[in-house]
Amino acid sequence: MAQTFKVIGTRPIRHDGLDKVTGRALYGADINLSGMLHGRVLRSPYAHAHIRKIDFSKALALPGVEAVMTSADLPEPGNRIAELGEGAVNLRHLSCNILAREKALYKGHAVAAIAATSPHIAEEALALIKVDYEPLPPVTDVRAAMKDGAPILLPDLVTDSLAGDESAKKPTNIAKHFQFKLGDPVGAFGQCAVVIERSFTTATVHQGYIEPHNAMALFNPDGNVTIWCSTQGAFTVRAQVAELLQIPVSKIKVIPMEIGGGFGGKIRVYLEPVAAVLSRKTGKPVKVLMSRADVFEGTGPTPGSFIRVKMGADKAGRLVAAEAYLAYEAGAYPGSPVGPGAMCIFACYDIPNVQIDGYDVVVNKPATAAYRAPGATNAAFASETVVDEICEKLKIDPLEFRLKNGAKEGTRRADGPTYPRIGMIETVQAAKNHPHYKSPLTPFSREPAASAGGIHPALAVGSRLNESGGGLPRGRGVASGFWFNVGLKSSCSASVNADGTVSLVEGSTDIGGTRASVAMQLAEALGIRAEDVRPVVGDTDSVGYTDVTGGSRVTYATGIAAYEAAQDIKGQMIARAAKLWGTKPDDVLYEGEILKSKSDKSKRMTFAEMAAAIHQKGGTIIGRASVDPPWPAGAFATHIVDVEVDPDTGKVNILRYTAVQDCGRAIHPSYVEGQIQGGVVQGIGWALNEEYKYNDKGEMTNASFLDYRMPTSLDLPMIDPVIVEVPDPNHPYGVRGVGEVPIVPPPAAIANAIHNAVGVRLTELPMNPGRVVKALLGAIKK
Amino acid sequence: MAQTFKVIGTRPIRHDGLDKVTGRALYGADINLSGMLHGRVLRSPYAHAHIRKIDFSKALALPGVEAVMTSADLPEPGNRIAELGEGAVNLRHLSCNILAREKALYKGHAVAAIAATSPHIAEEALALIKVDYEPLPPVTDVRAAMKDGAPILLPDLVTDSLAGDESAKKPTNIAKHFQFKLGDPVGAFGQCAVVIERSFTTATVHQGYIEPHNAMALFNPDGNVTIWCSTQGAFTVRAQVAELLQIPVSKIKVIPMEIGGGFGGKIRVYLEPVAAVLSRKTGKPVKVLMSRADVFEGTGPTPGSFIRVKMGADKAGRLVAAEAYLAYEAGAYPGSPVGPGAMCIFACYDIPNVQIDGYDVVVNKPATAAYRAPGATNAAFASETVVDEICEKLKIDPLEFRLKNGAKEGTRRADGPTYPRIGMIETVQAAKNHPHYKSPLTPFSREPAASAGGIHPALAVGSRLNESGGGLPRGRGVASGFWFNVGLKSSCSASVNADGTVSLVEGSTDIGGTRASVAMQLAEALGIRAEDVRPVVGDTDSVGYTDVTGGSRVTYATGIAAYEAAQDIKGQMIARAAKLWGTKPDDVLYEGEILKSKSDKSKRMTFAEMAAAIHQKGGTIIGRASVDPPWPAGAFATHIVDVEVDPDTGKVNILRYTAVQDCGRAIHPSYVEGQIQGGVVQGIGWALNEEYKYNDKGEMTNASFLDYRMPTSLDLPMIDPVIVEVPDPNHPYGVRGVGEVPIVPPPAAIANAIHNAVGVRLTELPMNPGRVVKALLGAIKK
Repeated sequence: MAQTFKVIGTRPIRHDGLDKVTGRALYGADINLSGMLHGRVLRSPYAHAHIRKIDFSKALALPGVEAVMTSADLPEPGNRIAELGEGAVNLRHLSCNILAREKALYKGHAVAAIAATSPHIAEEALALIKVDYEPLPPVTDVRAAMKDGAPILLPDLVTDSLAGDESAKKPTNIAKHFQFKLGDPVGAFGQCAVVIERSFTTATVHQGYIEPHNAMALFNPDGNVTIWCSTQGAFTVRAQVAELLQIPVSKIKVIPMEIGGGFGGKIRVYLEPVAAVLSRKTGKPVKVLMSRADVFEGTGPTPGSFIRVKMGADKAGRLVAAEAYLAYEAGAYPGSPVGPGAMCIFACYDIPNVQIDGYDVVVNKPATAAYRAPGATNAAFASETVVDEICEKLKIDPLEFRLKNGAKEGTRRADGPTYPRIGMIETVQAAKNHPHYKSPLTPFSREPAASAGGIHPALAVGSRLNESGGGLPRGRGVASGFWFNVGLKSSCSASVNADGTVSLVEGSTDIGGTRASVAMQLAEALGIRAEDVRPVVGDTDSVGYTDVTGGSRVTYATGIAAYEAAQDIKGQMIARAAKLWGTKPDDVLYEGEILKSKSDKSKRMTFAEMAAAIHQKGGTIIGRASVDPPWPAGAFATHIVDVEVDPDTGKVNILRYTAVQDCGRAIHPSYVEGQIQGGVVQGIGWALNEEYKYNDKGEMTNASFLDYRMPTSLDLPMIDPVIVEVPDPNHPYGVRGVGEVPIVPPPAAIANAIHNAVGVRLTELPMNPGRVVKALLGAIKK
Repeated sequence: MAQTFKVIGTRPIRHDGLDKVTGRALYGADINLSGMLHGRVLRSPYAHAHIRKIDFSKALALPGVEAVMTSADLPEPGNRIAELGEGAVNLRHLSCNILAREKALYKGHAVAAIAATSPHIAEEALALIKVDYEPLPPVTDVRAAMKDGAPILLPDLVTDSLAGDESAKKPTNIAKHFQFKLGDPVGAFGQCAVVIERSFTTATVHQGYIEPHNAMALFNPDGNVTIWCSTQGAFTVRAQVAELLQIPVSKIKVIPMEIGGGFGGKIRVYLEPVAAVLSRKTGKPVKVLMSRADVFEGTGPTPGSFIRVKMGADKAGRLVAAEAYLAYEAGAYPGSPVGPGAMCIFACYDIPNVQIDGYDVVVNKPATAAYRAPGATNAAFASETVVDEICEKLKIDPLEFRLKNGAKEGTRRADGPTYPRIGMIETVQAAKNHPHYKSPLTPFSREPAASAGGIHPALAVGSRLNESGGGLPRGRGVASGFWFNVGLKSSCSASVNADGTVSLVEGSTDIGGTRASVAMQLAEALGIRAEDVRPVVGDTDSVGYTDVTGGSRVTYATGIAAYEAAQDIKGQMIARAAKLWGTKPDDVLYEGEILKSKSDKSKRMTFAEMAAAIHQKGGTIIGRASVDPPWPAGAFATHIVDVEVDPDTGKVNILRYTAVQDCGRAIHPSYVEGQIQGGVVQGIGWALNEEYKYNDKGEMTNASFLDYRMPTSLDLPMIDPVIVEVPDPNHPYGVRGVGEVPIVPPPAAIANAIHNAVGVRLTELPMNPGRVVKALLGAIKK
């Protein structure tokens, strides 16, 4: 694809940049309306309990309290399944997650809400609500929840089993069991020169967006409600609130405010229906905010999981067979991303014989939500560690191994699809050629320890210390990852201004710079500058239907909508030029930013000149498009990491990190790089520190940013992103989507690097100092 | 035109109604941003003065004052003429009206502005600004300003004369003289059986919108500025601010808030550039508001005028010749609506010989602005009084006279155009058939005066008292009026929701219910209900270019845009239906709200079913249109009024008022009626009370609603609107525009009724009690 570009690949200042760096951008909590009430939510102190009765009398008697609500104020939705922008959702589960009905299923589960004239009164009033709970034993681990005799969360749950092997009759926490199969894995393992089977666990991890959830609603007596909130999808909020309150979507206007991070966690609604009902009850606008603890305990993190992987290769280093067993914690209601995890676990490789079993299991934790490549990071931690061990056994360079076994055009994935043109091999090749991979392990950052003469016991176990000439042990690891970016629906409209600029209205919440990346595609298609496009994100009344900002889809799908809107503008401009020049439209060419007559070389106008001319007479021009493109072919990444391990403390330092990724086409390389860096940082958080810590009562014990340890800039080196461009044939400029796959390889790459440094393989996330020390001590004992 | 309609002609609740009646609609002054400063404007206390120096030192020293500005902060625009949505504007004049440069030209002329941390500090600081004025003699009357030796406002003003008879060299206040000519009026007057020539004056009158002007601006350091304001045209504000500050339109985003009345007075900018510059200087958002006195003294009222009319008819009652001389007060800068006045003055009639001379004259009053059918009410007061006198002389019923002489299809107007299908005759016929015209004068509202035995001197002069059997004298008058509604540019985009509703984005500020009237046309075109359309008024970044809400154009031109957007939706729906049904688009019919296959009767879906289907797969649908239609054929009205005159006090009571108007097609009859009633009420205000009162210093002495007397509901009977529908062939549903013409006939109709009651003809507006008494006393003296 030998496309040359004027705008694509450049790095203009983002259109919304100044508002953000000056603090003027307005986020959900910045909205205030006159007469506004403040809503707060009461949450269950128990991880598992029957709710027998709720007594509001004291709370309602508190001056300033204007309304209370419980699940009784939400219509009974029944067990209907609806498509609401984040995949199929059981409406009863969604509703019960907004406000618990019969049972509280996790600590932090919303139970009741209050609207009062001040936040202080609302909070005081929460303490006056008397809830009569009957505590039940909780279960917070997926394997425990799957055992016979485990506490049952949802008595009427029936396993949705494609594998057909479960009894559907007895009470269960297993919401779903499915199986993907390709070839004959059982037989194939017999042909393998090396077979590795390992088990892994990953922790519950939160997206950790800086901005807590918020919602403001104003419900008018005519049945129309306006909602202001931070969301990844205004239309998705509209659809969910419509279903939950049983009102038509056209009665709801959702105004998306700027969003302070989402990563998948701001797709499902939590506060919006509560604010709407409290507003309907009081006739006043109601704003509801979460605290940080509310966010941790009451919204959807990514699931903890248990994964067993078995892989086998022949003597030549060809992968022959693979099996996986994935059990993911859905949290309180079914819906973990075990499906995507299963689709991704072996997706980087061409393996002829595969079997994958996936289990979606409810536990007494918050209902999980999407989190950047949901399910794939858990899966890759398992499979990429096993691949590394196979390479070790076969003494093959792990990148050579991936070149040999990597998925390519024509490779069939176990869950069905056959790949079109993809870029897995190209990322491996780029990693192999990168100076990072070619260099020896980076020089020590500190002098060899004074005690270098007395060797630490851990260093007996395969440490690189000796090779490196002293100091702490260092290691290098690599891992690859896959995420199947999505398409879905997007709309744009764009109107041409007299000064040759274009106002672009799009429906995609801008989380990672997509105002710029979408505007740039419109600019490229019209031959104008990125700065000549003014993008705005419309509310649900002001722009055509657009699905969520998620699935790495915005630059892809909304980009296609912008491209198509530009074609609509070009077609109209050509018609107007023909009219102006007294010729036929097919005599007019639009090249770059120039309109010209084929038959008369003197007839020639720039886009800006034509924009000015059409403003003189005959109506201006609006372009529009609403698209639902095929899904892109998916994104691959290969990462290289160098670590240093302190055997005394178990602390792992990231010394150098290089992340290679095929983005199809980098529209705005800075934001592609930013997405890669951000994804890697979150992956490092999963790898080394982040987890929901639970006590025996099922209570999260670290629901604050002080105790829930995310990486800071001081913990990390510069993450070095490397962009590979294998254009996606489904997109006019080759875009594939960028945002998610960079979180997938880090835990496995770091685990492989730790092994390379100190000779032990860690199989539990996070690989925090305690676990590292334990593993080292375990190795010594052997 | 035998169109039948589902939505048009019905009276659904307006979409914005609830927000307005509950006080939740947000107007310009309701916007507050954090860190906002408050701007106030210092105004000239002199009607005419050189500005020698402005000393800000004390004002700047006041704690809380953050910035000051004068005209020096606006770029020198030169005398360039620009099209800015309200016709051609001299940019230097526009700029000098924002903030005076060399001279202050009227009391209230803005001279400087201040931004401070509170409105109180800003107001206090204004008093600390020391302006060194050199007062000059003012001239506030158009005839005085035209005399040799009059004080000259603009030393470099050169008369723009198409008539070719003015010396362009000497200083003048005459900005323009033009002439329209048809046939041979001088010769034709010789053939007339009756010739009447009279002179008239009208007063300066303000639109009197309830909401004062306001502007909030936030100027970002990257050169982008956002402006929130109440305006009749967000794009016009954008264009004016762009020219005044010399920045591209695409750097400006104008967010139109709800508007509390405009009537033409909220098209030109006053505060917007001031707020923008103060924000640029301070780096903070700045909100500037006017007081009511500021509005009277500092914004644009309609001009006072002097008009001489001569008309002649033959014995048979055919109008043969007409001459008019119109001199309008432009206020401080050229640009009175004398042109439209001259176009309208004889526009109701078919007169073969016509000469009209128009003069645009600057005086030391605020620069005039548009006000509902600008210029036409002044003109009709003169011509329709003269017509009445001709009828009196010829003893012809005034409506019979209009039936005989009324303009119709093919009539040529003196300024050039020949009428297409119009409804003048139909309004006269409807008035003639109306019970009001057929009834005797309405019964007395009070008992005959106790003093009825002693006849008041005035009642000797042709009073109807005797006919009516005692009490105060009563009379009936009729008058017709014309206004040439306009077309201009409008844009709409509309997206189809899954529940069968449509979100409509339009660019026209909704002053008189146009969200409803535009939405209804979209609904009609799609076969759906008015309630199934959700209209919003977009900001300048969110909707295609749309000209001002003015010229009675919105229901016409934005209606056409909505109609065309619906056609775009229908075309796409037909294509999708064809795809769904495996047939060709030309096999699909869209009738009412039904899509059906011509070849297969089983293939049939409603709009709502198709909307749901397209949301399943394949992208949704956005329709769009941007139009610049031919101007509609214009609107005619004929009014009947009954008055009662108290000869002792000169007070005139309106007893009954019937206003017949051709609206082409009444989309929402309630809002057509509301427009008619509102226009009549304003016309009654002009007729009886409203005027800027000036003292010898050129100071307005009644700049408050207490002293500037507008009619209230207690002053008036129910105004009875009668809708006539003569469809305009330029519009798919026949709309002509409605808002302006109803203000045109009232002063003449009332003057004719007063004459009918007490036998005197008043020729000066307003016909307030003093003037009525004076006229009665004058008649007695004769």
